[in-house]
Amino acid sequence: MDTKRLEDIANKKMTRRDALKLAGVGGMGLLVGAGGVGAIMQPKSPATNTATSTGTGAVNGIVPFYGKHQSGIITPMQDFICMGAFDLTATDIADVRKLFQSWTAASARMTEGKGVDDESDNPHLPPVDTGESIGLDPMRMTITFGLGASFFDDRFGLSSKRPAPLVDMPHFNSDDIRKEWEGGDIVVQVCANDPQVAFHAIRNLARIARGKAVLRWVQDGFQRTSASDPAGSTPRNLMGFKDGSNNPKVSDPAAADEIVWAQSSDDPSWMAGGSYMVMRRIRMRIEIWDRSSLDDQESTFGRHRQSGAPLGKTGEFDDLELHRKDSNGNLIVPSTSHVALANMEGKVKILRRGYSYSSGMDPKTGQLDAGLLFVCFNRDPRKQFIPMQQKLAAADQLNEYITHVGSGLFACLPGASEGGYIGDTLF
Amino acid sequence: MDTKRLEDIANKKMTRRDALKLAGVGGMGLLVGAGGVGAIMQPKSPATNTATSTGTGAVNGIVPFYGKHQSGIITPMQDFICMGAFDLTATDIADVRKLFQSWTAASARMTEGKGVDDESDNPHLPPVDTGESIGLDPMRMTITFGLGASFFDDRFGLSSKRPAPLVDMPHFNSDDIRKEWEGGDIVVQVCANDPQVAFHAIRNLARIARGKAVLRWVQDGFQRTSASDPAGSTPRNLMGFKDGSNNPKVSDPAAADEIVWAQSSDDPSWMAGGSYMVMRRIRMRIEIWDRSSLDDQESTFGRHRQSGAPLGKTGEFDDLELHRKDSNGNLIVPSTSHVALANMEGKVKILRRGYSYSSGMDPKTGQLDAGLLFVCFNRDPRKQFIPMQQKLAAADQLNEYITHVGSGLFACLPGASEGGYIGDTLF
Repeated sequence: MDTKRLEDIANKKMTRRDALKLAGVGGMGLLVGAGGVGAIMQPKSPATNTATSTGTGAVNGIVPFYGKHQSGIITPMQDFICMGAFDLTATDIADVRKLFQSWTAASARMTEGKGVDDESDNPHLPPVDTGESIGLDPMRMTITFGLGASFFDDRFGLSSKRPAPLVDMPHFNSDDIRKEWEGGDIVVQVCANDPQVAFHAIRNLARIARGKAVLRWVQDGFQRTSASDPAGSTPRNLMGFKDGSNNPKVSDPAAADEIVWAQSSDDPSWMAGGSYMVMRRIRMRIEIWDRSSLDDQESTFGRHRQSGAPLGKTGEFDDLELHRKDSNGNLIVPSTSHVALANMEGKVKILRRGYSYSSGMDPKTGQLDAGLLFVCFNRDPRKQFIPMQQKLAAADQLNEYITHVGSGLFACLPGASEGGYIGDTLF
Repeated sequence: MDTKRLEDIANKKMTRRDALKLAGVGGMGLLVGAGGVGAIMQPKSPATNTATSTGTGAVNGIVPFYGKHQSGIITPMQDFICMGAFDLTATDIADVRKLFQSWTAASARMTEGKGVDDESDNPHLPPVDTGESIGLDPMRMTITFGLGASFFDDRFGLSSKRPAPLVDMPHFNSDDIRKEWEGGDIVVQVCANDPQVAFHAIRNLARIARGKAVLRWVQDGFQRTSASDPAGSTPRNLMGFKDGSNNPKVSDPAAADEIVWAQSSDDPSWMAGGSYMVMRRIRMRIEIWDRSSLDDQESTFGRHRQSGAPLGKTGEFDDLELHRKDSNGNLIVPSTSHVALANMEGKVKILRRGYSYSSGMDPKTGQLDAGLLFVCFNRDPRKQFIPMQQKLAAADQLNEYITHVGSGLFACLPGASEGGYIGDTLF
């Protein structure tokens, strides 16, 4: 794509017809990427997150890294995720502080579409940045840091600072958590509208951490690309059902404060403006699911597959009426359906931000290793995620088709101001 | 995105200014997916590949499945790949024929953005299609089938039909091929501009194969999305270098015939219009690469990192002059650089169509399992890929940083006409 021509569109030197031609209409076969035009128009200078911002960058442009909150939490979901957990090898808190300072500076640059730092002029040195994202747009990348319970053991003298909501995750019925997908001292969630941009960030953060921290696990994931769904429908999970219809609207600051953000009145105060992230690697028993009837699938979710509507309704966003009965007196939405149990009588909400994953085959079983990289944010997991998951683990019909194989709970730090760094309220 | 408004653009009921607004310019924040407009404009009825077609669909529209050649070979590369190999459990050639007939019909539908078949009205049956691509655009998906050497063993009475170019892949120096990433009776390459659309295809083909074939391995891969690079530069691999600058221009039918397509004058005649695919899963020793100097990296590839130009030149597409020397009499492009060896004195060419892969961590080493899912097509691997790889394996400086851990060679069948099926020239 000729940048000059895109600028011509912006400067109105082209007709509407030319613009459409450029967009591929008329068989010219040129390719305007998602937001190809928008990306050019997007100012490259960083802005600052505000308290009420949802962190929405322009299409494929920059989501500000600095702000009251970390981005990547109430930011509208991007198309891809690359999430990694690190274990610290550093033994001195000063090194941990330095690591977060370096990570902050590099992350702020990467979210602007730059390399981790300026390249040196000395070709006898390794490049400063690994280079695979040179020339690529910022792609709305966000980088979100969190601390696991193990961060607060006795290594760094921080055990008294462990937040009460950062509990040890309880064992749930039907969990089959594998060591290699569990925990970590630090989690880094990278989301972007491009998988290469996201991979680049995790890889360069791992490189910066050399000598201080090592990767423990890495999982990437995807949604359908925005480009595949110009209507912007709710994405479908790998069971074929719409997932997220009922997510709270955290563009409303009051809802975000209630559901997502740790408040200054909560304990500890250094977490004010942060949030607690739950990661669950949920493997789907795809082959078994695919053999179950449409009836079974719909009663398992409590929704219709095609429309996403609650059972007995026609619209995806129609009210979920859990007490409605059919003419025989049976509940229309079964009480053990996923949607009925997760509803928690409407009293408990979490912000879901999950992605599908596909990791080839499980060599042990010869079946696809695919499912949901469940991610959610909540203000206090003791009152939100954990009771909800206890209810689901005990009775959810969906348990027949899924296994939780990975798990993590992390305290996602408050955002940093320019000049500060992620973690500066703690260290 | 409102379909009505996209249709209005198509029908010229909107001004250029409105169209740009809709595309996100002017801060409306609406999202036109890559080819959101193009997709709507793309006729949904299938067309037929012609002998000279490069298979270019409109942006995110339909690439025709039927034609003289299979699509996904000289088709301009999509952003994502999901490749799977199958082993047959069927013991009767009639079942294999039925499998290819079913696969052909389902593939043609899926490339049009439809489910594998019409859904039944009976909710007591499992859905016909798994559903995760409902509502998504066709995303230029191609599905390409090939047969491995093991297909021609004594199970189906086809051993006399094994094509001479479908040799057993020789062992190359520094190969470390793992059983779980090698071979397969059948390969299916799915490429699309969306990972969920591509996954959906492999999964549904596996489901259709139930009782006849089982998955042996599955690997997905990506390039930077087209949207991240409106300028349409050559993509970079995970070593940060541009990859594919020198790929032959197979939009020229004479070049495609010479380099890619088995000809009717070649043996066997049932492969005329087909091609031979090589798959190599090439793991990169990323951590070691990242510690090497820019000098070392550039002399390893024989190109400059930033520009992609041959060493000593400034433009990516400048002539590769392998005999040029500096003032000290040393070759400017080292004779053991990747580009010098792969050049084969300009006499041997292959069509590369590879993708980056990132498969989390290798639990054995704690390092990233990432690299290149190398895919290439050639008319006769005995004269093209194999001598080239022998030369590379013996001397390529790049070998210090890579390991070939997977391998496959497959006879990709000729295309099918509507009413026919993939493989009908053989079975």
